[in-house]
Amino acid sequence: MARWEPGARERLVMAAVDLFTEQGYDATTVAQIAERAGVTKSTFFRHFPDKRELLVAGQEALSLLLAEGIAEAPAEAGPLDAVAAGLERASAAFGEVSREIAPRLKAAVATSTELQERDALKSVSLAAAMTAALIGRGVPDPIAALAGELGLLAFKRGYTTWAGDAKGDFAPHALAALAELRAASAALG
Amino acid sequence: MARWEPGARERLVMAAVDLFTEQGYDATTVAQIAERAGVTKSTFFRHFPDKRELLVAGQEALSLLLAEGIAEAPAEAGPLDAVAAGLERASAAFGEVSREIAPRLKAAVATSTELQERDALKSVSLAAAMTAALIGRGVPDPIAALAGELGLLAFKRGYTTWAGDAKGDFAPHALAALAELRAASAALG
Repeated sequence: MARWEPGARERLVMAAVDLFTEQGYDATTVAQIAERAGVTKSTFFRHFPDKRELLVAGQEALSLLLAEGIAEAPAEAGPLDAVAAGLERASAAFGEVSREIAPRLKAAVATSTELQERDALKSVSLAAAMTAALIGRGVPDPIAALAGELGLLAFKRGYTTWAGDAKGDFAPHALAALAELRAASAALG
Repeated sequence: MARWEPGARERLVMAAVDLFTEQGYDATTVAQIAERAGVTKSTFFRHFPDKRELLVAGQEALSLLLAEGIAEAPAEAGPLDAVAAGLERASAAFGEVSREIAPRLKAAVATSTELQERDALKSVSLAAAMTAALIGRGVPDPIAALAGELGLLAFKRGYTTWAGDAKGDFAPHALAALAELRAASAALG
């Protein structure tokens, strides 16, 4: 049996998200997810430790991309310019499969407090990753924390408009949201 | 048997937080919490539906206080001044028992991913409550969202310094944090 199965990971995510929406998160088993995806249970476990991790598997990769983009922004870039570089780098994580999953994922999260909690912790982790990367650039604490939260807001707003769009990259959506938040920040006084 | 038991609620929270820290959240039962608090299991269930809710029982009250303070701020108050009014109003929820619980609660949350997730959703809910109250005042969307996040950051930072303080109200801590974030926001450009 070939260990490499093209698209198995994506099929598993898609199947899981659909099952969570149809019958709820708690009622869905790993066996059902594997069956719907047309793979074996051991294939599932080669990709994910459990059904919960399946939904957050992308989070670490995303935090790394955001942090890398921020760390590697030009030395003269201000905090929000560095955040913009992080969001551009993170765009690599959002392909067509992600866009297809987005509305189903949203529906699944809406049905489950447990998934809402997991999703909230993901948000907190992304903001923390951006804040830490900014502090690593020498941005002082309250400014770094604020810029990290702005980055998270831009990420979430950009994700929503990107997912609702028919095609195109994530980056322009996130950067437009960041520009809007930057203007709002100036207006706050 | 008297239905009114002075301090039972606080004793239950204190006992639960200590047990979560000592032996972990999953291993702690309602029976153990009730025993440690010196009350019966039915007293526990008069106060809380389950052990998880015990830790988040204060959240709705807190969201209401924040939203009320924001809604009732003078009409001429800007978004961050309204947020300040919300934080002042929320101060009513933080008495000496809350301060005593704070370090234990922090230790308990550190030991459990489940509690971290619940705590993250609580944060998201508080920011959403502030944002909704600001929108109710006519503050336009991106500014309201940003001010709500600033309010949450001020709340969390104020809570940390207040909990580390020997005495005094929550409000001055939260307002000092908000003033610092306001200055950081202006510096972000």
